[in-house]
Amino acid sequence: MRMRKLPWAEEFLAEAEVVVKKPQDNAGKWKQLLACETLHVEVGTGKGDYWIQMAQQYADEGWIGIEKNSSVAALAVRKYTKLENPGKNMLYIQNDAESIQSWFAEGEVDVLHLNFSDPWPKKRAHKKRLSNRKFIEQYAHILNENGEIQMKTDNSSLFEYSLLEFQNAGWFLWDVSVDFRRCEHAEDVITEYEHRFMEKGQPIYRAVWKKKMKENA
Amino acid sequence: MRMRKLPWAEEFLAEAEVVVKKPQDNAGKWKQLLACETLHVEVGTGKGDYWIQMAQQYADEGWIGIEKNSSVAALAVRKYTKLENPGKNMLYIQNDAESIQSWFAEGEVDVLHLNFSDPWPKKRAHKKRLSNRKFIEQYAHILNENGEIQMKTDNSSLFEYSLLEFQNAGWFLWDVSVDFRRCEHAEDVITEYEHRFMEKGQPIYRAVWKKKMKENA
Repeated sequence: MRMRKLPWAEEFLAEAEVVVKKPQDNAGKWKQLLACETLHVEVGTGKGDYWIQMAQQYADEGWIGIEKNSSVAALAVRKYTKLENPGKNMLYIQNDAESIQSWFAEGEVDVLHLNFSDPWPKKRAHKKRLSNRKFIEQYAHILNENGEIQMKTDNSSLFEYSLLEFQNAGWFLWDVSVDFRRCEHAEDVITEYEHRFMEKGQPIYRAVWKKKMKENA
Repeated sequence: MRMRKLPWAEEFLAEAEVVVKKPQDNAGKWKQLLACETLHVEVGTGKGDYWIQMAQQYADEGWIGIEKNSSVAALAVRKYTKLENPGKNMLYIQNDAESIQSWFAEGEVDVLHLNFSDPWPKKRAHKKRLSNRKFIEQYAHILNENGEIQMKTDNSSLFEYSLLEFQNAGWFLWDVSVDFRRCEHAEDVITEYEHRFMEKGQPIYRAVWKKKMKENA
C-alpha cells in the first residue's frame, strides 16, 4: 500500500506501548509475553484491520502484526490505541520482514498470515514479494512443524507465483481456493480493504501451505 | 457434457476409419502409426474441436482423442470426417479412459490434455473426475519422463481439487494460471465451447504438471 509519509508516524510509533522496538530480544518469549499457546504473525498488516479484528475474534491466541512502512504502521497502531478494550494478546513490529528470522526462535510461530501483499509486478522486483524463496526460507525456520502459512490476495499474478515458489521450496499445499469468498468463511474476517475487491467482483485467491504433507490426503 | 443419445452413433463409430477399435493392440506403436515424434492425447474430447484444431495447428505431431460418451464421440468424429483435408496425424478412441493405461506403452505419451472435464460436483462422485488419483496413477505410467499434463477448466472446484490431487500424488506444478486468457496464448486454440465461458466473463484456470521438478525453478 503506497501512501504519503505521515510526519507524526515515527514519533508516535516510538511511544506506542504495543510496538516492540527490539523484536530480536523477544525471540523465544512471545507466547509467554502474550500469554497464549498459539502464535499468529501477520506480515504486512497494511492499516491493521485484519490484525485487530482477528485478535478480537481469537482473543486467547497471540497476534503479532508486522509492517515495514512507518506511515501505514502508524495508522494500524493508532487504530489499536483507539480501541475501547485493546487486547493484551497483540503486539506490533514496525520493521522490514527481511529480518523476520532473527525476531523469532526456531518453530515459535504457529500461523503466518500474508494478506493482500504488495504484488511487485515488475519481474526484477519479484524478489521483494513476501512469497519469494528468500522469505520462504525464513518462514520455514520460525514456523513449527505443524505450523502453516495462510495467504490471501486479489492479485492473480502474485498468487500463481506463490503457488510455484512454495512448491519449489518443498512446501505442501494443504488448501487452495481460487474464489475463497464463494462460500462463507466466518472463521476469517473480511476487512474493508478486502470488501473493496469483492464489490468489484474480483475473486479472492487463498492458499494454505505447511512444511509437511497431509496424511491420508 | 450431457446430451441425448444419438441413435446413429454406435454404427457410425464402428465404421469410421479414424476410430481405433482395439486401442490396446496399438500400445507402443502409436507414434509409428501417426508418423510423429510427439504424441498428444486428449482425454474427454467433447465434441472434438480442440482435438481437431490442435491437430491442424500442430500437423507434424500426433493427436489422439478419447471420449467415453458414444454420442458425443460420434459428433467429434463426424466433424473430423467432414474436414476437407482430414489429418493423417489423428486417431480416436471411443472408450472409458479408466482403461487408458492398457492402451499405451510405458512412457509413450508426451502431452496429455484435460480440457473442461466433467466436474462431477458431488463429493461421492469425485473419484470419477479425470484428475482423481486413480487416473493420475495411470497417466504417470503412460507419460514419458519429460511428458506433461495440461489441464484447462472453468470450474473452480475441479481446479482446486486437481491442484491438491496432483501434488499429493507427487507431481510438480510447472505452470499455473487462474486467468489463462488474461494474456494471449496463440499456441493453444480457443474452442467455441471455451469462448462461451469467456463471454460470460468466467476465468479459465490452467495448470501444467510433470512428474519431475523443474531445474533452477
